[in-house]
Amino acid sequence: MIYTKEHIADLDRITRLKLINSVTGIKPANLIGTINNMEQTNLAVFSSVVHLGSNPPLLGFISRPKGAEFGHTYRNIQENGVYTINHIHPEFIKNAHYTSAKFGEDISEFERCNLSEEYIKDFKAPFLKESTFKIGMCFKEALDIKRNGTILVIGEIEHLILPDESLAASDIDLEATNSVGISGLNSYYSFKKINDYPYARANEVPEF
Amino acid sequence: MIYTKEHIADLDRITRLKLINSVTGIKPANLIGTINNMEQTNLAVFSSVVHLGSNPPLLGFISRPKGAEFGHTYRNIQENGVYTINHIHPEFIKNAHYTSAKFGEDISEFERCNLSEEYIKDFKAPFLKESTFKIGMCFKEALDIKRNGTILVIGEIEHLILPDESLAASDIDLEATNSVGISGLNSYYSFKKINDYPYARANEVPEF
Repeated sequence: MIYTKEHIADLDRITRLKLINSVTGIKPANLIGTINNMEQTNLAVFSSVVHLGSNPPLLGFISRPKGAEFGHTYRNIQENGVYTINHIHPEFIKNAHYTSAKFGEDISEFERCNLSEEYIKDFKAPFLKESTFKIGMCFKEALDIKRNGTILVIGEIEHLILPDESLAASDIDLEATNSVGISGLNSYYSFKKINDYPYARANEVPEF
Repeated sequence: MIYTKEHIADLDRITRLKLINSVTGIKPANLIGTINNMEQTNLAVFSSVVHLGSNPPLLGFISRPKGAEFGHTYRNIQENGVYTINHIHPEFIKNAHYTSAKFGEDISEFERCNLSEEYIKDFKAPFLKESTFKIGMCFKEALDIKRNGTILVIGEIEHLILPDESLAASDIDLEATNSVGISGLNSYYSFKKINDYPYARANEVPEF
């Protein structure tokens, strides 16, 4: 099947949303936890968390501001400067998925979707207790992507909490961490490791 | 296991690279194909391709400029304005992985790693013949992430080529497309679908 730019523009909105959200391949399934100045918590599923660099350890995600009523995650991050990124596991995919519904500002997705807040000392944002792999982030800057009104939110890792058994030779085994991925907007996947390869040095590349 | 910001800063460089490259969870495994004005092609594995928006259909990826000698992908994109994003499949993961070695400018990873160029009419950048899921991209802009010297490269989808059997109700089945994912720098994974959920509307969220 071949789509051109023109075909894509002519698709109905939902078909285009589903298709274009799928074309990059698998996406990481994370829940971002935040809190506002009124101590109201928020939890939202994001599939756009991306590695920006390791030293300093920077991660980004894409925020879609939707006006005054929604976009609570980004607004809470601006208010408090911290947030958490929590891996989704198979046991609570359904709960996690429904955090994407547009609840009012006074409803915490933690409570509505039966997920649990967890706090650590001197860090204001809520972690997700059900997740065994979670990251405490400090907001650094936001880059406007004016072309479509989205924002690249950039933060630095302050705390990294992960299961001991997930590390093998400093590599994280995503089968062992029981992490999941997303295709498009609605489909969740588990993983099976195929292979590891060494860091590729030009003089060590095999003949093919 | 718990790491603080200070622990992470104290890790040796390779351990930190491996660890921080893994914390976001699964990453999509794509090969980006480019060509320069001297008709020299380049192919490089990227795990940072991210959906930015569906209308217009925009994708981003993170480029790490490494000085004059390397970073051929971004330089070629600047020269010709087009590039391709091609899903990696299990049959050629090893070939794909070794495109990440730092070859000289006069060496095409297509040739060195035994992968095949494929062209379509009126589009200068090379697609990867071995990939059944490929995207022709038109460069739009690059946002500097000054904090760590990386770049968010933004492009619009011009051509989308995918297998017919991959679409089910406009959702792309990444098991059917035989796509793979990456953890960290070196580990490749296949997928198994766990579940689909409907688009989440607040008044249709189940009780948990």
